[in-house]
Order: sequence, then C-alpha cells, then structure tokens
Amino acid sequence: MPVKPTPGGVCAPAGFVAGGVHCGLAKRQDKKDLALIYSEVPCAAAAVYTTNKVAAAPIWLTKSNLEDGKAQAILCNSGNANACNADGDQVALRMCAAAGKLLGIDPRDVIVASTGVIGQPLNVSLIEEAIPQLGKALSAGASGSKAACAAILTTDLREKEIAVSFELGGKTCTLGGIAKGSGMIHPNMATMLAFLTTDAAISAPMLGAALGVVVADTFNMVSVDGDTSTNDMCAILANGLAGNDEIAAPGQDYDAFVGALAHVCTYLAKMIARDGEGATKMLECKVSGAPSEQDAKLLAKSVICSSLLKCAMFGGDANWGRILCALGYSGADFDPSKVKITLASEHGKVTVCENGGGLDFSEELAAKVISADVIEIQVELTQGQGIALAWGCDFSYDYVKINGDYRS
Amino acid sequence: MPVKPTPGGVCAPAGFVAGGVHCGLAKRQDKKDLALIYSEVPCAAAAVYTTNKVAAAPIWLTKSNLEDGKAQAILCNSGNANACNADGDQVALRMCAAAGKLLGIDPRDVIVASTGVIGQPLNVSLIEEAIPQLGKALSAGASGSKAACAAILTTDLREKEIAVSFELGGKTCTLGGIAKGSGMIHPNMATMLAFLTTDAAISAPMLGAALGVVVADTFNMVSVDGDTSTNDMCAILANGLAGNDEIAAPGQDYDAFVGALAHVCTYLAKMIARDGEGATKMLECKVSGAPSEQDAKLLAKSVICSSLLKCAMFGGDANWGRILCALGYSGADFDPSKVKITLASEHGKVTVCENGGGLDFSEELAAKVISADVIEIQVELTQGQGIALAWGCDFSYDYVKINGDYRS
Repeated sequence: MPVKPTPGGVCAPAGFVAGGVHCGLAKRQDKKDLALIYSEVPCAAAAVYTTNKVAAAPIWLTKSNLEDGKAQAILCNSGNANACNADGDQVALRMCAAAGKLLGIDPRDVIVASTGVIGQPLNVSLIEEAIPQLGKALSAGASGSKAACAAILTTDLREKEIAVSFELGGKTCTLGGIAKGSGMIHPNMATMLAFLTTDAAISAPMLGAALGVVVADTFNMVSVDGDTSTNDMCAILANGLAGNDEIAAPGQDYDAFVGALAHVCTYLAKMIARDGEGATKMLECKVSGAPSEQDAKLLAKSVICSSLLKCAMFGGDANWGRILCALGYSGADFDPSKVKITLASEHGKVTVCENGGGLDFSEELAAKVISADVIEIQVELTQGQGIALAWGCDFSYDYVKINGDYRS
Repeated sequence: MPVKPTPGGVCAPAGFVAGGVHCGLAKRQDKKDLALIYSEVPCAAAAVYTTNKVAAAPIWLTKSNLEDGKAQAILCNSGNANACNADGDQVALRMCAAAGKLLGIDPRDVIVASTGVIGQPLNVSLIEEAIPQLGKALSAGASGSKAACAAILTTDLREKEIAVSFELGGKTCTLGGIAKGSGMIHPNMATMLAFLTTDAAISAPMLGAALGVVVADTFNMVSVDGDTSTNDMCAILANGLAGNDEIAAPGQDYDAFVGALAHVCTYLAKMIARDGEGATKMLECKVSGAPSEQDAKLLAKSVICSSLLKCAMFGGDANWGRILCALGYSGADFDPSKVKITLASEHGKVTVCENGGGLDFSEELAAKVISADVIEIQVELTQGQGIALAWGCDFSYDYVKINGDYRS
C-alpha cells in the first residue's frame, strides 16, 4: 500500500500541536533551543534509546516514564546534553514537571530529551522560565512542526521533517516526524534524535515492535563518524484519533503501519547522513547476495564507516580497494573472491571490481560518477539472499574543523 | 632485567644484513621501494597477520612458507599492496623465487610482504630486475637497516627503527626492528608492517608464543583511523648466533626475551601512532582499575579510536565528555559513575572528571596541557585490577587531504 506525502511534519496527524522557542541554552539569540510536541489526548508511546553505557539523564527518565506504554508530550532542548552532570536526574525531572504543569498532564507522561555538549551543568531555570512562552508558541499548523524541528538542531545545517498519509481499514491515517543528527552518529540506536507522531490507533506493544523493526533498518544503518552518542532517542506517540480499529496484533494493518513508519524513518535517516558534519556527499551502500541479512548489514555498515573510503569519496578518488578492505574487516561471513563493486550516481555507473579483483575501468567516468552529491556503492555477492542498505557521508576538512572546537 | 639501546636496527643482531633500493614501484625516483633482510644462517621464524578477510597474496604465501617455523630472509616492497589482483599469488611466488635465487636459499624460506595501493596490478618484473642491485646493497652496518627501513615506508614521515641488547644465561643477545605504519591502522593485528630480527636462540613455537603475547599489547593497541589493512604483518627471525641455550620452554629466559620484545614493539607501536597520517599529536590512553584486562583494553582502544575526540585534541579542546562517551560505547563492562579522567603532558596535569561527572577545572590549564605533542589520557576506575595502554593520534585536515587523493 503506497504512502502519500503530506505537509505538516509532526503536526500533520490529527490532534498534535508543536512549537519551539529560544530559552537561552544556545548561545545565538536567534537559535531556537527548546521544543515541545503535545497530543490533545493520551497516546500509546514507544522509544528506542542509545546503547551507550554512559546514557544521559533524560534517557533514564524517559525509559522510566514509558514503562506504562503511555505518554502525551515530548519536551526537548538543544545546546546541552544534560549528560554526566551530578544534578542531571533533577534537571530532567524538573523539565518534565514544567511541561506537565503547562499542559495539565502527569509529568510521567512527558518524554524528555536533550542534545548538545556533554558534562556541562544545564541551567534548568532557563527552561522553566521559557515554558509559558513555549506554551503560547504551540500550533497545530505546519509552522508548529517547523519551529520544533528547528529547536532540536545543533550543528545540523538542514531541518529534517516529513509526514505521510496511508490507509488502515478504510481510514486515512497520518504519520509525521522530525529529526536531528549531524555528529556523533553511528549505528547502534539511535544515533540521533527523532520524534514521530501518528493518529493511527495502535497498542503500545505493537507500536514498540514496529519501532524496533524499523529503526534497525533505518536509523541504525546510518553512520557519520562512528561515535554513538549518550543521548540518542527515537520516540513515537500514537493518539488513535484517525479512528481506525486499534492494531493490537500482527496482520495486514500492522504491515501497512510498518510500511509507513519505514518510509518516514528511511527519509529521516538519509537526511541525517546527507547532513553529516562537514559532509559534501551522501554515500549509500547497497549490499546484495550476502549469505544472510545480518552479514549484509555488517558489510554495508563497514563500508559506510571507513574513514579512508570517506576521505577518498571527498577527494573524488575511486579507490575501490578501500571498499574491499572495509568489507574484509567487517566481521561478516563472505567470500572475497565473489565480490562485485559498482559505483553509481546521477552521472552514470561504473563497475570497478569483479570476482574480488580490479577491472580496467575508465578513471574519467569513475571520477564523473563520484562527483555527484549522492553516490551509491553497490556491493554484489552471489552467496545468498541477504540484502542491506546503509547510509553515510564523506569526510571533509570541515568535519575536523567543526569538531576541533565544538565547545567554544 | 633491563634492556640496553644499541644502534643498527635489524642489522644489530649478529649475522643479519639488510638493504633497500628503488625498483620503480614508487613514483618518486629517490624513494626506495624494495627491502631485503637476510640472515647468514637459517632462522626460527614466526609472524602475526592481518585479520582482514581480504588478505593480500603475500600474506597467504608467507603463512604457507612459515608452516615449518623456519625462514632466512624477508623481502618487502612498498608502492603496491599486491592485494585483490588476479595474478597476486604468482607475483608473490615470483618475489620469493627471485630472493631465493639471489641468496641461494629455498624460496619457501622467504617471508614476503607488500604495502601500497590495493587492486592495481604489480609489475613484478621491476622487482626481479632490481634484485641483483638489491643484493649488492646488502650491508651488515647500520646503513643496511636504514635503507630497508626507508624502503618499506609509504606515506610515513619518519623512519621507525630500534635495537636493544639484553642478557640470556650470561650471553648478550640483540633484538632489532623496523616498522612502517601511517594509515589504515587499527588494532586487529597487525595494522602495519614490522620486521624483527634477533640473534637469540629460541624455538619456533616459543618465538610464535612470544610474538603473539607482545603484539596483543603493543601493535594491536594502536589505532590511526579504524581501518584494518589487507596487508599487515609482523614477522620475526631468530638465528641463534648469540650462542645462548635455546629457549624451548617457558621460564626465566623466555620472560627476558618477551621483555626485550615488548620493549622493541612498544617503541615501534608508539612511533606508528605518532606518525599517523596527518597527525600533529600522539595520544596515549591509560586505563587502570577496570574489572578485567580485557575491559581495560576495550576502554582504552575506544577512546583512542573516537573521531570526535581526535578532532577535539587537534583543536586543543578539552572536551572530556567525548572521552566518557567513547568509554560508554566501548562494549566494556564498567560503572560510568566511577570514572575519573585526567589529562597529562609535559605541560602539566588536570583532572577533568571524577565519579563520572565534570569538575570545575581550569580551561586555561587544560588548553596548555593538550597543546603538547604527546597527550596522556588517564582513565581511572575503582572496579578491579585491569590495566591497558593504547596509542593513537589526533585527526587533522591533513589526514583528509592525504587520503582524499592517495592513488594519484
């Protein structure tokens, strides 16, 4: 069942409002740094979190708040990660309390998230003082989603927002999302922040299952720099206002919902890769014919993560040996003598390696192919049915520059 | 038992000669690109190899040649990796044959290695034609080792050479080594080329055991860029000419030998980290008090490998949150709330994090500490006896530049 693009981001589904303001955590006065998403009615809720053992305070509090599978709002600040601070738990609790008070809901129904510098005290008064203003800024229109989207960004250059509509049992449902990424992005959940809203009716367990499946194939297949952040989270609220029969078990409706969720998350994941810190090109690695899907994923991720390949793509050098090398240390089970590698883009297509060995390809054509903004690296094996996609970006001087003085 | 520095590199031990010439694989006429190390008498031999599944032809041939635990010479070219080439095995065989003919030894007693671009045909005639000249260049003096050392380098800026003497049962033994590194350097054996020679008498099995133990704590604890090469190898020849009683079992002599080997390999490993592509600073991460040695190693390596931390060190930013973050995703078992982090260098020492949280440290002092060429990152836990050292380097604009057009 096809999904249809629709405007409005996280405000596109019925019953959701959102907004963003500047509370003072970001240094620039014109940078929004506090976002709120709110559903008029209680929602089934689910989230996937960073696997980093040094998880930030908001991660722990959100995990606890979502134990009952319910939530009604998402509050997120940028500019400070609220990670590794002695008073982190108190700060996160006060953020939830402030949002709960504003919205007249239980603070435990608030999902809380933070992104920014690690280990600097967060002055939570700035957030508390800005909450009334944030309440006034809430809007059901596209501008509400856009403001929330802007407020969660850090070094991102582009806003990442999408919404789609789809049918469930004759009812039109809508699913929207916003995300932030850019640096400290590496596959291992969730490598970024993504907040999703839907008016579809779906039980919390099925929502959690759908999110887990989809994140594994989308956000967890993105890498910018191999660093898994302390703060990453992908959360979804489902308020049921579309009026479909609640999805409470696997079946056709569940599959349609997963399809729409995959569409939204794939789009946001690719946007994150494309907007990697300092990136000038997006890389998509497509592995097919691997012995298993797990092997295909390991292979695709390893290519996307290779610093050497990322430099070569930045420099426009079709150094395919580095692709084969990255496949070799991926840990995947595969036969190097069966590898075929093709580089493709809007400027053409060139096979550079077959049966694990180099071909006498046109360097001129290869240079033209990889001069594009989006480069597809196709790795074909003939060992099985395993396929996988992974996304990343090139490594540029600007990555080093951005991260050489991030705190200042 | 202390070891004593001695000049001469791989020619320092009795009975070894070495040399290096330009055969034409390197583009620059003044760059030596073919090295030979030879022992007058047969040697016990051992090697550790890359774990990359896409291992180059010389790796496979050397593995096969060393099955009997014996060798007498090492032939190595730079400028071409002889990896992923259809005729790779033939090329490697012809290299061994040419060296065997020159030296009057069985080609299966030749260790062969290559380093350079992957997947470009290697014109082995260039090597064969240069072999007589290489034979004439062999020398037992320090110049022989220096020439061999220069010939195995690629993008390295510095030569990496060392020798030490030590006592075994009243006899003075000597152990020397040369290495190349620079890029595609990541812990997982062997991440570089290192060739070691000794006149100590030691059986092949004990030599292999000693090499395995030492490499795990030295070369495998270095990372420049997270890419494990297709070609890496650390090989050692022991010719017994020192006249000590052959080490054929664990004991005091074996321990003394391991100590000398560790000294040599630690020095070369640190030199490789320091000379990482584009590096301006060497980083040494020292983890102590971890639940186990394995955990300590995972933690130390993870810090050294973090792209974000490497950028921060280049930029002179004491962004310790990235250190804690890297510890968190290392996969090691540890308690984040017990972490203490101290930055130290010749310019001073500053503790930036205690009990997993930030301290109110002097940014001025921290900036001074990390302005040094060598920065020590001390991570102290209070959970056990596990300690580990790992070495890496910062990430600079030049890394991107060097690797953006490596093939051209």
